[in-house]
Amino acid sequence: MIPQALFTPQTVAVIGSTSSGKLGAILLQQIMDGSFQGKLFAINPKAQGYADVQGCARLQDTNTKIDLAVIASPPGTVASVLEECGQCSVKAAIIITAGFKEIGNQAGEDEILAIAKRFSIRIIGPNCAGLCNTHHRFFPTLEVQPPAGQVGLISQSGAIAGLILAGAAQQGLGISKFVNYGNGSDLSVIDFLDYFREDNETSVVAVYIESAPDGRAFMNALAACCAKKPVLIIKSGRTNVGKRATASHTGSLAGADAVYDAAIEQAGAMRVKSVDELLNVSNALVSLPAVKGKRTLIVTNSGGPGVLTADAAEALGLQLNEPSEKVKAKLQAFLPAQCSLRNPIDLTVEGNREGYQRTIEAAENEYDAVIAVNITTPYLNADDLARGVATAQKNSSVPILTHFGPQQFVCSSVQILGDQAIPNFNSGEQAASVLAMVYTYWNKKQQNSVRKWPLWKNEGTPAFPKGPVLEPQAMQWLAENEIPVPRNRYCEDEFAVKDACLEIGFPLVMKVVSPQILHKSDAGGVIVNIKDEDTAARAFYTLRERAEGKDFRGVMVYPMLNDFQEVLVGLTIDPQFGPVVAFGLGGIYTEVLQDIVLRVAPLNHADAIQMIHCIKGINILKGYRGQAPCDLSALANLLVKFSNLPFEYADLAEIDLNPVFLFEKGLMVGDVRIIQS
Amino acid sequence: MIPQALFTPQTVAVIGSTSSGKLGAILLQQIMDGSFQGKLFAINPKAQGYADVQGCARLQDTNTKIDLAVIASPPGTVASVLEECGQCSVKAAIIITAGFKEIGNQAGEDEILAIAKRFSIRIIGPNCAGLCNTHHRFFPTLEVQPPAGQVGLISQSGAIAGLILAGAAQQGLGISKFVNYGNGSDLSVIDFLDYFREDNETSVVAVYIESAPDGRAFMNALAACCAKKPVLIIKSGRTNVGKRATASHTGSLAGADAVYDAAIEQAGAMRVKSVDELLNVSNALVSLPAVKGKRTLIVTNSGGPGVLTADAAEALGLQLNEPSEKVKAKLQAFLPAQCSLRNPIDLTVEGNREGYQRTIEAAENEYDAVIAVNITTPYLNADDLARGVATAQKNSSVPILTHFGPQQFVCSSVQILGDQAIPNFNSGEQAASVLAMVYTYWNKKQQNSVRKWPLWKNEGTPAFPKGPVLEPQAMQWLAENEIPVPRNRYCEDEFAVKDACLEIGFPLVMKVVSPQILHKSDAGGVIVNIKDEDTAARAFYTLRERAEGKDFRGVMVYPMLNDFQEVLVGLTIDPQFGPVVAFGLGGIYTEVLQDIVLRVAPLNHADAIQMIHCIKGINILKGYRGQAPCDLSALANLLVKFSNLPFEYADLAEIDLNPVFLFEKGLMVGDVRIIQS
Repeated sequence: MIPQALFTPQTVAVIGSTSSGKLGAILLQQIMDGSFQGKLFAINPKAQGYADVQGCARLQDTNTKIDLAVIASPPGTVASVLEECGQCSVKAAIIITAGFKEIGNQAGEDEILAIAKRFSIRIIGPNCAGLCNTHHRFFPTLEVQPPAGQVGLISQSGAIAGLILAGAAQQGLGISKFVNYGNGSDLSVIDFLDYFREDNETSVVAVYIESAPDGRAFMNALAACCAKKPVLIIKSGRTNVGKRATASHTGSLAGADAVYDAAIEQAGAMRVKSVDELLNVSNALVSLPAVKGKRTLIVTNSGGPGVLTADAAEALGLQLNEPSEKVKAKLQAFLPAQCSLRNPIDLTVEGNREGYQRTIEAAENEYDAVIAVNITTPYLNADDLARGVATAQKNSSVPILTHFGPQQFVCSSVQILGDQAIPNFNSGEQAASVLAMVYTYWNKKQQNSVRKWPLWKNEGTPAFPKGPVLEPQAMQWLAENEIPVPRNRYCEDEFAVKDACLEIGFPLVMKVVSPQILHKSDAGGVIVNIKDEDTAARAFYTLRERAEGKDFRGVMVYPMLNDFQEVLVGLTIDPQFGPVVAFGLGGIYTEVLQDIVLRVAPLNHADAIQMIHCIKGINILKGYRGQAPCDLSALANLLVKFSNLPFEYADLAEIDLNPVFLFEKGLMVGDVRIIQS
Repeated sequence: MIPQALFTPQTVAVIGSTSSGKLGAILLQQIMDGSFQGKLFAINPKAQGYADVQGCARLQDTNTKIDLAVIASPPGTVASVLEECGQCSVKAAIIITAGFKEIGNQAGEDEILAIAKRFSIRIIGPNCAGLCNTHHRFFPTLEVQPPAGQVGLISQSGAIAGLILAGAAQQGLGISKFVNYGNGSDLSVIDFLDYFREDNETSVVAVYIESAPDGRAFMNALAACCAKKPVLIIKSGRTNVGKRATASHTGSLAGADAVYDAAIEQAGAMRVKSVDELLNVSNALVSLPAVKGKRTLIVTNSGGPGVLTADAAEALGLQLNEPSEKVKAKLQAFLPAQCSLRNPIDLTVEGNREGYQRTIEAAENEYDAVIAVNITTPYLNADDLARGVATAQKNSSVPILTHFGPQQFVCSSVQILGDQAIPNFNSGEQAASVLAMVYTYWNKKQQNSVRKWPLWKNEGTPAFPKGPVLEPQAMQWLAENEIPVPRNRYCEDEFAVKDACLEIGFPLVMKVVSPQILHKSDAGGVIVNIKDEDTAARAFYTLRERAEGKDFRGVMVYPMLNDFQEVLVGLTIDPQFGPVVAFGLGGIYTEVLQDIVLRVAPLNHADAIQMIHCIKGINILKGYRGQAPCDLSALANLLVKFSNLPFEYADLAEIDLNPVFLFEKGLMVGDVRIIQS
């Protein structure tokens, strides 16, 4: 729980030197510039005030119950300052001061956290850039003061928050509240997701993180927030090097990036790549009504920019269908003959206010969104055209995005559009890309219900005794857990092989069993297409010979199978998110093309179906060129059952079901490898 | 050849009304605003002047030899105006006036082109936004006047040119010359590529096209220009819808976009996606010394933006190696203890002028480029840090790119960087992306020599008589052209099959021959693994039965082959570029994953090798998990020979060699389909 004192305090003490250029002075100036309506005090040993703000040597000298302390005193003093805060019943503290965990001073950070806990003070920081609450006119931060609005910003990095706020101020995007939690010793991204979820002044949540303190708690907070409002996330440390830099930056361990990708997708949030994208998509989500489909009309006054917009829109999967004959007839009634009435509709350089307005209005029923493009020159004024678009927005319900440019000649036009909540972008491509993301949001929202992922604790009984898990045990365990495996027989000697032949039937496959042979095929440990008993007996001896010097434990006998597609299903335990399931096409697809998708476990059936359809080669499984489709429902069942195993058994570290044979009806696990933790 | 009169005229007549708001007035104002040093006249029926410019009713009334006419009179008058220009020996004309081919008035356009040819007047337009020559201070254009510099801009679209020039003006990127050729009735992209190639004031060429008038002439002009200076291209009409819009915009047929991709790549140019990318990469190419490798150092004062930059750089293939121990020791001598010395090097919020300067200098010998990131707040000034970076640039030869931000607080810092020719970008990701493109340019340049592609005319003797080409003929023709095919025998009856068995040996494959069966496998027209004469005879009858009702012409007999990878090699005739060769992994890879690459024919051996390595699945051919690698040299030989066939034989419209079997040594064409034009 975030105490009310943090975002909406009535009494605030800024602790630190108020000499010129010092953090204390800057913070006080910022708070005053923001027209804070509560009581403000400056606390420092010299009892130095700042402008009209009263200076006191100690908190108790204020003779006031202080709600919030903003601490910018040197790192060595922070512990005693917090102690004093506790004695004065301060409820929350923003610790701007740096010099703790981020430079290796874990002891210092532990010390202040212990004091905070003792006095029930909730803190943000240390090493943070503060927060703001525009609707409360409260700006205890070193960063730009953005205009008031509906976007709530949570950032692990102060510098990124600074870039986002500066960008928001520049493009007039309103912010409701912002917080940079720095080292996140106490309050962190999860707490603020919970808070912004319920905050009525926030309708879109923007997040920058480098890592989440607890993967599953983060997912749950995210999913709960996403059920109420859109959440956009920049997660850095995407690549190996990036990850290394993150680790050295925050001293926290980042989980593998692909797992974050999965977690963000599963929770229903949108991952964006850059500060610009975060600002643009936030702007569109705040401004636009719901985008219910992909049918997009581009209206332009110039061919080139119209085509570039169309290129981008189509590449992103938006549908640029032509207007119906009925709409074309309407358009012909008022557009000049030379206008192209396909899509983009090119009003040509003669495009005017009426042209934009009536074209958009005519399209309302056939399109889910309109991108209006207008390129002007220094000698023309686009305001009247902007008025046409704005009027169309008043008269119709279709979401409208614009690219009016070049930037330096359309400031007043962009204002006219903005007054009607029409977001303008620096290029048509950008408008198309934002529209595609907004559509994705609304499309996903319809499918989404609130989800909760169980925490994971490696509980239950271990599935196997300590030591290597051999194929016979693994296959038996899978079968016991209702995961389909082929008929099989474990044979420790040639007599057992004879029985196995009778039981399994020909042709059959024989595989070596040895704890020392992991890659059986590479070691010559698999013999296929065995057609009679003699060959089977010889195969047994051959495999035993090939395993010479290794711990030979016998062979597994399976029937030869036909007419299948191979896929891979895997399990791994991520340090941040716990059990994670992998799925991909088997063999060279996985190894060469890396066509694989991850999901945080466990999965339900809908998750599994969605996961299966995420691989690039999905059409191979759906049947191509007349081949029979694979049983994707059976595959989904397998994924669901498999994803629950780490919650039922302890000590599973890694499982590969590779290959899994998919048939037109049903499936079977072809091989399995299990590593215990 | 572009006449000198076009870009550097001494005497200019602007033809059209000079009343307020009319194009003639705007053009005269623009030319005067640009401080044109030559003589200027206004020509219109009323002999109306403009400001100090003398007005005349007719060209001859000027009593001056006019070098260049700028025509903005109504479309109906353009022909007679041109006629008058011809009589007065005007050498070049810019026809701003619209209302010709672009609205379907082809006759009007043909008429003015005929007059121009008769009098040897070279024209740009009609329907164009003009040109500029900053070094000659000549701006006969409706667009923004950009600062003088080294980037030459050729644009098919006036609006895109306007966006580029406005963007250049805004970020201070210098332009040498710009031209928008509109309908391109006479002079077009090819002429201007030739001109900018030899223009000493232009060191980087930026191009926007929707289509090229003649694919191969365009490629040759592009390759010749690329051999002298970098060329960046935006080609729109990338997608199907985009293409449709282009067609309706310019009335010209755009070739398939993937062929443009190939042609631009083969010619050595760089395709960029957006106006922003064009501006950013141009800026970097103009400013930076050669980038000789991928080793990139990121120096930052804030973790988050450093990590985002690192993420982007690594995803783009740049190498973020750590500094050597030697350099680390150097850095430790002057950086505070808490700075991360890995890569990114994080100077932290305490990063100062010396920190930036000496860190970059220390890295000079171990890195091919440095990205310096600096995020400031409203309360700090980054100028001193910019000076540190600028000094490092003076003292070292390493290329430096920067991301100083947020934009609104670093104007003076960016100026300090710009004075030292250090390009600044709006984000670290953008800096990384530009660096990767600049590196690609320099890397390619080293490999490139000037190439010329032969024009294509569908000459030579047809390879086959008119009508469907059957497999026996096609296989024989391939063999005659030294393209390896398996032993084979065409059998029209069962007696021939007997002979074939002896000749080919077992096991063998039998395939139906019929002009009415194109997809043999789908029609049950292929029987494999035939192991004796009786089975072969039965197979013949089976195939004959299955072809009942079709024109059955017999069977082809081949040996069964083993241990190969399948690929596809194809030929198609593109309407814009002529013969184009396709290569991809065969079967499901091509159909499901669309892993295919195109090249304009013919290819040399180096082209072919490069082409082969462009497919995503190349590692499958190089041998994976202990499999033998395929004979890529034989494959390259095949591609070279194959790509020359359309230049030796007439009437080849499409060829599919699918599959081609690749062995560890050598290859063989498994099946072939030939369509004649």
